[in-house]
Amino acid sequence: MTLRIGIIGVGTMGSDHAKRLSTRINGATLAGVCDLIPERAQKMADLYGAKVYATGKDLIDSPDIDAVVVATLPHETHEQFVLEAIKQKKYVLSEKPLTTSAAGCRRVVDAEIAGGKRLVQVGFMRRFDQGYQEIKQAIQNKTYGEPLLIHCAHRNEDTPLNYNSDMAIVETAIHEVDVLHWLLGEDYDSVFCFLPKKQTRYTHKGLHDPQIIEMDTKSGVHIDLEVFVCNHMGYDINCRVVCEEGEIALHTPQNTIVKVAESERESIPNDFTVRFKEAYDREMQAFVDGINADQLTGPTSWDGLIACVTCDALFASRDEGGVRKKIELPETPSFFQEQ
Amino acid sequence: MTLRIGIIGVGTMGSDHAKRLSTRINGATLAGVCDLIPERAQKMADLYGAKVYATGKDLIDSPDIDAVVVATLPHETHEQFVLEAIKQKKYVLSEKPLTTSAAGCRRVVDAEIAGGKRLVQVGFMRRFDQGYQEIKQAIQNKTYGEPLLIHCAHRNEDTPLNYNSDMAIVETAIHEVDVLHWLLGEDYDSVFCFLPKKQTRYTHKGLHDPQIIEMDTKSGVHIDLEVFVCNHMGYDINCRVVCEEGEIALHTPQNTIVKVAESERESIPNDFTVRFKEAYDREMQAFVDGINADQLTGPTSWDGLIACVTCDALFASRDEGGVRKKIELPETPSFFQEQ
Amino acid sequence: MTLRIGIIGVGTMGSDHAKRLSTRINGATLAGVCDLIPERAQKMADLYGAKVYATGKDLIDSPDIDAVVVATLPHETHEQFVLEAIKQKKYVLSEKPLTTSAAGCRRVVDAEIAGGKRLVQVGFMRRFDQGYQEIKQAIQNKTYGEPLLIHCAHRNEDTPLNYNSDMAIVETAIHEVDVLHWLLGEDYDSVFCFLPKKQTRYTHKGLHDPQIIEMDTKSGVHIDLEVFVCNHMGYDINCRVVCEEGEIALHTPQNTIVKVAESERESIPNDFTVRFKEAYDREMQAFVDGINADQLTGPTSWDGLIACVTCDALFASRDEGGVRKKIELPETPSFFQEQ
Amino acid sequence: MTLRIGIIGVGTMGSDHAKRLSTRINGATLAGVCDLIPERAQKMADLYGAKVYATGKDLIDSPDIDAVVVATLPHETHEQFVLEAIKQKKYVLSEKPLTTSAAGCRRVVDAEIAGGKRLVQVGFMRRFDQGYQEIKQAIQNKTYGEPLLIHCAHRNEDTPLNYNSDMAIVETAIHEVDVLHWLLGEDYDSVFCFLPKKQTRYTHKGLHDPQIIEMDTKSGVHIDLEVFVCNHMGYDINCRVVCEEGEIALHTPQNTIVKVAESERESIPNDFTVRFKEAYDREMQAFVDGINADQLTGPTSWDGLIACVTCDALFASRDEGGVRKKIELPETPSFFQEQ
Repeated sequence: MTLRIGIIGVGTMGSDHAKRLSTRINGATLAGVCDLIPERAQKMADLYGAKVYATGKDLIDSPDIDAVVVATLPHETHEQFVLEAIKQKKYVLSEKPLTTSAAGCRRVVDAEIAGGKRLVQVGFMRRFDQGYQEIKQAIQNKTYGEPLLIHCAHRNEDTPLNYNSDMAIVETAIHEVDVLHWLLGEDYDSVFCFLPKKQTRYTHKGLHDPQIIEMDTKSGVHIDLEVFVCNHMGYDINCRVVCEEGEIALHTPQNTIVKVAESERESIPNDFTVRFKEAYDREMQAFVDGINADQLTGPTSWDGLIACVTCDALFASRDEGGVRKKIELPETPSFFQEQ
Repeated sequence: MTLRIGIIGVGTMGSDHAKRLSTRINGATLAGVCDLIPERAQKMADLYGAKVYATGKDLIDSPDIDAVVVATLPHETHEQFVLEAIKQKKYVLSEKPLTTSAAGCRRVVDAEIAGGKRLVQVGFMRRFDQGYQEIKQAIQNKTYGEPLLIHCAHRNEDTPLNYNSDMAIVETAIHEVDVLHWLLGEDYDSVFCFLPKKQTRYTHKGLHDPQIIEMDTKSGVHIDLEVFVCNHMGYDINCRVVCEEGEIALHTPQNTIVKVAESERESIPNDFTVRFKEAYDREMQAFVDGINADQLTGPTSWDGLIACVTCDALFASRDEGGVRKKIELPETPSFFQEQ
Repeated sequence: MTLRIGIIGVGTMGSDHAKRLSTRINGATLAGVCDLIPERAQKMADLYGAKVYATGKDLIDSPDIDAVVVATLPHETHEQFVLEAIKQKKYVLSEKPLTTSAAGCRRVVDAEIAGGKRLVQVGFMRRFDQGYQEIKQAIQNKTYGEPLLIHCAHRNEDTPLNYNSDMAIVETAIHEVDVLHWLLGEDYDSVFCFLPKKQTRYTHKGLHDPQIIEMDTKSGVHIDLEVFVCNHMGYDINCRVVCEEGEIALHTPQNTIVKVAESERESIPNDFTVRFKEAYDREMQAFVDGINADQLTGPTSWDGLIACVTCDALFASRDEGGVRKKIELPETPSFFQEQ
Repeated sequence: MTLRIGIIGVGTMGSDHAKRLSTRINGATLAGVCDLIPERAQKMADLYGAKVYATGKDLIDSPDIDAVVVATLPHETHEQFVLEAIKQKKYVLSEKPLTTSAAGCRRVVDAEIAGGKRLVQVGFMRRFDQGYQEIKQAIQNKTYGEPLLIHCAHRNEDTPLNYNSDMAIVETAIHEVDVLHWLLGEDYDSVFCFLPKKQTRYTHKGLHDPQIIEMDTKSGVHIDLEVFVCNHMGYDINCRVVCEEGEIALHTPQNTIVKVAESERESIPNDFTVRFKEAYDREMQAFVDGINADQLTGPTSWDGLIACVTCDALFASRDEGGVRKKIELPETPSFFQEQ
C-alpha cells in the first residue's frame, strides 16, 4: 500500500521533499500540499498530481493524508503543525530545528509522550549521510580505539543578508550539535562559544563570522567546531574523529577528479542540497519505512530538545565572553530510549 | 499508478533487483518472480509479497505483469525471454550482455524493429553512474577541449574458477566497450587485443590474466584498457579521459578517509554491487520512469549488438596475436536514433 | 672557503647534523665534535674526519673552528655553550628550545645585544619546510584573503616513558608556538591550554595526552592546536590556515601512492627526521650561507625568548584549568628587527 | 678535498647545474665554465667565482679541472666532449641523451672500455627521484608481488615551435625508456609506437601530438606510455606499476593543499626543473660522491646506448605504422656489470 504524504510549506526545502517523494522514494506518494503562497502550492500540486489544502490544519486532518512533512518558515511555525499531527495521531517529519526554543520542544515532547506513541521525526538528515554512518560504525566498533577528540567545520559559501550570528548557531551549527552526540552515543557535559576578534570582510553588522564552538561530552571527548557561514569558497563540512589509534574523517563525495590549469582538483559543492542529496533521500525513505513498520527510527523530538537546550547554552556562553556552560537536561525519558 | 514488474532469474543480480524494486524505487513494485530453482523464487516472493510463476513465459504473458526484468544465467538464455516480451509488447530490462552472440542480438534488434516500438533496455548500468555522467557532460561541453585518449582499467579482486579469458571480455570488459562509445558519442573504427607474456600467479589454465584491449573510434580517439580480473587488491574501475586542455577521471566514491598505521587511506570496494549500487538504482528508476513516460532512454538492443560485434572482433584479434581488426557494423537504424 | 663547523653533543640530533654537514651541505665541513660520551664523539670524528674536543668550551675556543652547532641534552645545557660562542664572537646554531626558561633566553638575548652582532640561530627548522614557506607566501600575498583561523595538530606516534605533559609543550608544541607567529608575522595576544577529560590508554602517570592549546594573535587570528604525543598512528603534522576566501594547509610530502588490500594509501611518516629531513638540510644550509654572507636570517634568540614566554603562559593556564593568559613581552628590540 | 668541476655549455641545464654545484652540493665547487656564447660563460663565472675557458677541450684538459659536466646543445655535440674527457681520464657527467645515435653511444662505450675505467655518468636524473626509487624498492622486494604492467604518461605543458615528433621521443620519452628498464632490472624485448589519428589542436606541422609507445620486457612486463608534449595543463609525469597484489604509482610531490573556488587542489608543476629539482640535486651529489669514492654508480654509457637503440626501434615502428620491433642489443659487457 502506498503511503499518502502531505507537505506543509513548499519553499526550498518543501519543494525539494515534494520532488523526492514523487520521483525517488519507494512506498509513498505526494498526496497533498499547502503553503501561505497559494501559487506555490498549486505549482507543486500540478507538477506531481497532489491536492492543494487551504491550511496546514486542513491537510493534517484530512482522511486522505496518512502522514505529514512540516517544512514551513520561520522555524517557529513548526510547533503548531507538529502538535496538530500528534493530536491526529499522524506521523510527522519536521524540518530542523523542531522549534527554536527549548520550551517549544518540551511541549512537543510532552504531547508525544501523552499520546503514548512516537510520531515525530526531526529532520536532522546528517544521521542518514553515509559518511557519518561509517564514522558511527567505527566508533561503536572501536575500530581505531576510543574516540578522544572531534575537529569540525561547518562552512557555507554565503548567506542572505538577514542571516545573523544566532541563526549561524541555531540553524547551521545545530546540525553538528545533533549529529555529534548521536555519533558518540552520549550527552554533552558542557559547552562554550566565543567570537574570534578577526572576522571575514564578507560579513555585516548582525553577523559575527566565523564563530568558535567547543563542547565536551560526559565521558570527556572534546569537540571544536568552526562555524563559518560566508567563507566564499564552498559548502564544506568537516568532521575528523581522533581516536586512540587513528583518525576517521568525512570525505566530501567525489565522482570525478580533474587535472586542469596546473592543478588536480576535487570538487567542493556550493550548497547543502548537493552535498546531502543522498542523505535527504535516505532520511525520507527511513521516515516512510518507519511508518510502514509502525516504528520510527530517526531523530526524536527529544533530540530536538537536546539541540535547543545546547544552543541556548551556546548563546549564553557567547554573551558572557566564552565561559563554559553546563548542559542541564533531565534524564532521557524511557519513552525515547525504547527504540 | 504503480508499475507491476516481474523478474525472471533471482540469483545474485535478480535478487538484488528484487530488493531494489521493493525498497528503493519510486513508482513500481515487484509483482512476480520465477527461477529454475523454485525455492529461490519462493524466498523472494515471500520477502517482498510477489507471486511465483512457473516459467519465464508464464510471467511475461501474465496480465498481472506490466514489465519484465531478465536476469537469468547463463547469458545465452536472455534472448528467448526478451523476444517473448517483445512479442507480448511488454517493456523489458535485460541484464548485460543482451545475448552472447552478435547473431542473437541481431534477432532481438529485428524483432523490436518489426514490432515498431522500443521495448528493450540493456543493463549497461555504468551509463547511470554519476562519475561517467559527469565525464560525458565534460566531453559534450568540451570543458577541457576535445577528447584525445582514454586510459581505462577494469579490475576485479577475484573470479570463480570457471571464469575464463573469453568471459573476462564478454562479461567484464563489455562494460567499457559499451560505456566508452556512449561517452564519446561515436562508433569504434578498429580494435585489438593481446596477452602480455607475464601473468599473475593467481590465475589458472583457462584464464590469461591480465589482458590488454585497445580501441580507436572513428574520429581517432585512442583507448587502452587493462582487464585484470584476479588483481587481489579490490574492485577498481579507472577511466581517465585526456583532453586537449586537461584530464577528467573517475574517482571511486568515498564517504570517509582514515588515518591508521602510518598511512592515510581511501577505500577501494571489493565488489561491483558496492561500487555501482547507486548506478543500479538509477538504472532501474530510469527504466520505470521511461515506461511511465512510454519512452525508454537507456541502452538499446542496438547498443547490445555493438557490444557483441566488438567483443567478437576482440576475440579474433587476440587469436591472431593482436592484429588490428576493423569494426564492421551496418548504419545505425533510424529506429534507434530517434530518442 | 669552506667553513669549519664544530658540533657539541652528538646524540640523535647532533649526529644527524654531523652527517648532514659532511654529505649534503655546500660550503661547510664538519671540523670538530665533542660529547659527554667520548666514544660517541670518536665515532663521528672517525666517520667524517673531524677532530674530537674534550669539552664544549675547548671546541668553541679553538682557532680551527669557525662556527658551532649546539645539540646537547638536556636542553638546559644549551645556554652555557651559546653564551661562550657569543663571547668568542662565533656564529652558533642552537637546537630548540634555546633554553627551557624565559630567564635563560633573556640572558642569551642580552649577551648577543651587548656583543653588538647577531650570532645566534635557533633550530626551529619548520620555518625552512617548503610547506610552511608556501603557506607564509600565501598569507603575505593575501592570495586567499586575510587569515582568520588556524587549525593545527602535532601528533607523535609514541614517546619514551620519561616524556611528560610539560615536555609535550616545551619540546613538542613549541614548534607550533614558533612557526605560527612567524607565519602570521605578528605576536600572540593571549593563550590558553586545557586537558580534555578523556585520554588515550597509551599514556602513563606523568603524561596527560592529548592536550589542547589555543592562541590568539594581536590582530585576532584564532589558533587551535591538538598536541597528541602517543597517537599510535604516525608522525602527523597538520596546519590549516582558514582565510577569507579559501584554506591552505600542509600536505605531508608523498613520493608514491599505493593501492593494496582494498584501499588507496598515502604514507604518514613515523618520525620527525623523516618528515622534516629537507627542512633540516635547508636550515643548516641557511646557517652556513648566513655566515658566509655575515648576516644570519633564521630564527633569532628573541624568537627563542618568545617561545619560552608563551610556553610559560600555557603552563600557567593549564594549571589554572584553562583560563586565558595574556602574553607579556617587551617591545621587540630594534637589534632583532633590522634584518 | 673539494672537487673542482667544469661545465661545458651553460644554457638552461648548464646554468642550473652551475647554481646547484655552487650552492647545494657537498664536496665540490664550480671551477670552470665555457660556452659558445662568451657572455653567458662570463656571467656564470662572475656569479660563482669560476674561470672561463675558451673551448670545451681547454676546459677538459686543464689541470685545474678535476671533472666535467657536459650540457651543450644540440645533443649531438656531447659526444666529442665525453670522448675528450675519457681521453684525459677525467670523470664526466653528460646530459641526456648521451648522443642522439646508437653509433655515437657505441663509440663512447668502446672508448670507455678501452680506457679500462668507468668515467661516464649519463644525466638520466629520474633514477634519483625519490618516487621512482620507492617504486624500484617495492619491485625488488616484491612488496606487491611481481610487476605485470606499467602505465605511464609523460606530459609537457607546451614545447617550442621547433620541437618535432622525433624530439618528443629521443629527448622526452627517452626518460621513460631509461628509467623503466632500470626500475624492472631487465631489458626490453620488443617495442612499438603509433600515432593516434586525433591530435590536439595545439600542435603544428612537424609535431604529431600525442604519440603512443608500448614496450615489453624480456620477462613479459607490458608498458604503455602516453607522450603528450603540448597538453596545456602542466608538467605531469605518471608511472603506475601494476603488480600481482597491488599498484604503486608516482605521486607528484605536494607541500600544501588548497581549498578555493569550490574545489580542493593539489598542484601540478609547470616544468621539469620544478618537478625534478631534488632529483637533479641528488644526481649531482651522486656524481661527486662517486668520484670521491672512485666508483661511479649512476647511469652508464651502456644505458645511454640502450636508450638510443630503443628510440631507433620506436622510430622504425612508427614509420611502419606501429609494427612491433625487436630490440637487438649485444650482451651487456662485463665492464658495465661489475658495479
